[in-house]
Amino acid sequence: MMRTVCLVSDRTGITTEMLGHSLLTQFATLRFRTLTMPFVASVEEARGVVARIDAIAREEGMRPLIFSTLVDDEVRAVVREANGFFMDFFDAFLAPLETELGMRSAHVRNAHPPGIVVDPAHSARVNATNYALANDDGAGARDYRSAQVILLGVSRTGKTPTSLYLALQYGIFTANYPLTDEELESGRLPPVLVPYRDKLHGLTIRPERLRQIRQERRPESRYASEPQIQFEVRSALALFERCGIPYLDVSSISVEEIASRILATKNLSRQVRA
Amino acid sequence: MMRTVCLVSDRTGITTEMLGHSLLTQFATLRFRTLTMPFVASVEEARGVVARIDAIAREEGMRPLIFSTLVDDEVRAVVREANGFFMDFFDAFLAPLETELGMRSAHVRNAHPPGIVVDPAHSARVNATNYALANDDGAGARDYRSAQVILLGVSRTGKTPTSLYLALQYGIFTANYPLTDEELESGRLPPVLVPYRDKLHGLTIRPERLRQIRQERRPESRYASEPQIQFEVRSALALFERCGIPYLDVSSISVEEIASRILATKNLSRQVRA
Repeated sequence: MMRTVCLVSDRTGITTEMLGHSLLTQFATLRFRTLTMPFVASVEEARGVVARIDAIAREEGMRPLIFSTLVDDEVRAVVREANGFFMDFFDAFLAPLETELGMRSAHVRNAHPPGIVVDPAHSARVNATNYALANDDGAGARDYRSAQVILLGVSRTGKTPTSLYLALQYGIFTANYPLTDEELESGRLPPVLVPYRDKLHGLTIRPERLRQIRQERRPESRYASEPQIQFEVRSALALFERCGIPYLDVSSISVEEIASRILATKNLSRQVRA
Repeated sequence: MMRTVCLVSDRTGITTEMLGHSLLTQFATLRFRTLTMPFVASVEEARGVVARIDAIAREEGMRPLIFSTLVDDEVRAVVREANGFFMDFFDAFLAPLETELGMRSAHVRNAHPPGIVVDPAHSARVNATNYALANDDGAGARDYRSAQVILLGVSRTGKTPTSLYLALQYGIFTANYPLTDEELESGRLPPVLVPYRDKLHGLTIRPERLRQIRQERRPESRYASEPQIQFEVRSALALFERCGIPYLDVSSISVEEIASRILATKNLSRQVRA
């Protein structure tokens, strides 16, 4: 039997989804259907959510689970009355935190420090994304001076998705540089990168994994051939070792994990609100 | 006085950061310094974290706040002993959920359903990102058949960052189509889009806001001129109205909010784990 789970948020719902999923995966033998209900910011919208949840409970003959992140006390109070098993993030944590900090919290949605005007078109996320696109794989004029990290690796090691993830998730200015045969043969760091050695981070991969990825892209090409791949992967690794460039094997980790490990290694911190 | 906050996670730390920040913004008059401590997956790593936290408590003469998302009971038990004010997400929610569901949860990190092999290079996120890059602003051959949503708008309405955000955050295949003068003058939907009308979503913007953005990009150009912008914004809006294409004004909302609202409007759901 399938249990319905309502993820109710006063903002985009992303945090609520993360919370919900991380709890639900702990019950792997059960089946869940999740419904995200974002932007529930007023009492009126909250009443709409309650009506939806009550209808589901009637239809399914079982009350849904409700995970919510609703900071406004009034809005939360409305949703709590729905016919569901209600768990709210702020309910659980704000009160103990108020005690520890010795003050009452704002209980307001989406608090921005006063005086700060939010400009979506120039947010750190958008700026960093535009930077990543302009400094991707040798496209466009390169501006390594503005980079916070420069990813280095052979073709198909995940440089582009990682750059974009670092930009969109963390607001980090990330350039990337594909190592060519010539550079790998020379065994030296490309001269253009020498002034930025401290910003470099290598990506490496197991040869058999790279072969598989390249075969799908260009079957039976030199690009996907065993000797070429062995040469590239070995030379890149040797270069990283010789120049003391930190690197990460991406063969079996996700883009989220690659990004997060690079931040830790380079001692960089998030530039935008989580 | 600055209070240190340690965000401890057994995975990338993104969820933990979101939780921490959403709580801390409720105490806007206090100053916090946050330290993310990701990949704390073993008892040994947990001991390292405890040593770090204890050192901070000694140095600062005040115990740090600790927000954690540690699903493993043993690892959590170790971090709980640190000299800090400890709050764990699973501590708060797993027990009530176990009662409601009538079963004990797995208490294991990063549970994947058995038999599912994770392939990072072919994850939905990476596939969707490659799709967005290949179908961005008329670059490359367009494959609208595979799109789950096609963003439509004039230049500088945030189509590209939104496409990439939809790909990386949600795994949604998003194409985007810039409306040209010629198309806007004709007042008709570009023929290539007609078969995909149901997938279209418009982005619009206030003329004065667009003017500001374009001025920065190409000062004093026709592209940034008042009449040109008035023409483009009005014609695009008229086109959306005439064709019944849902649209969103992006003038003062963030890329996260644009993405999340589009999903809600198009009734699309997340394709990847939050």
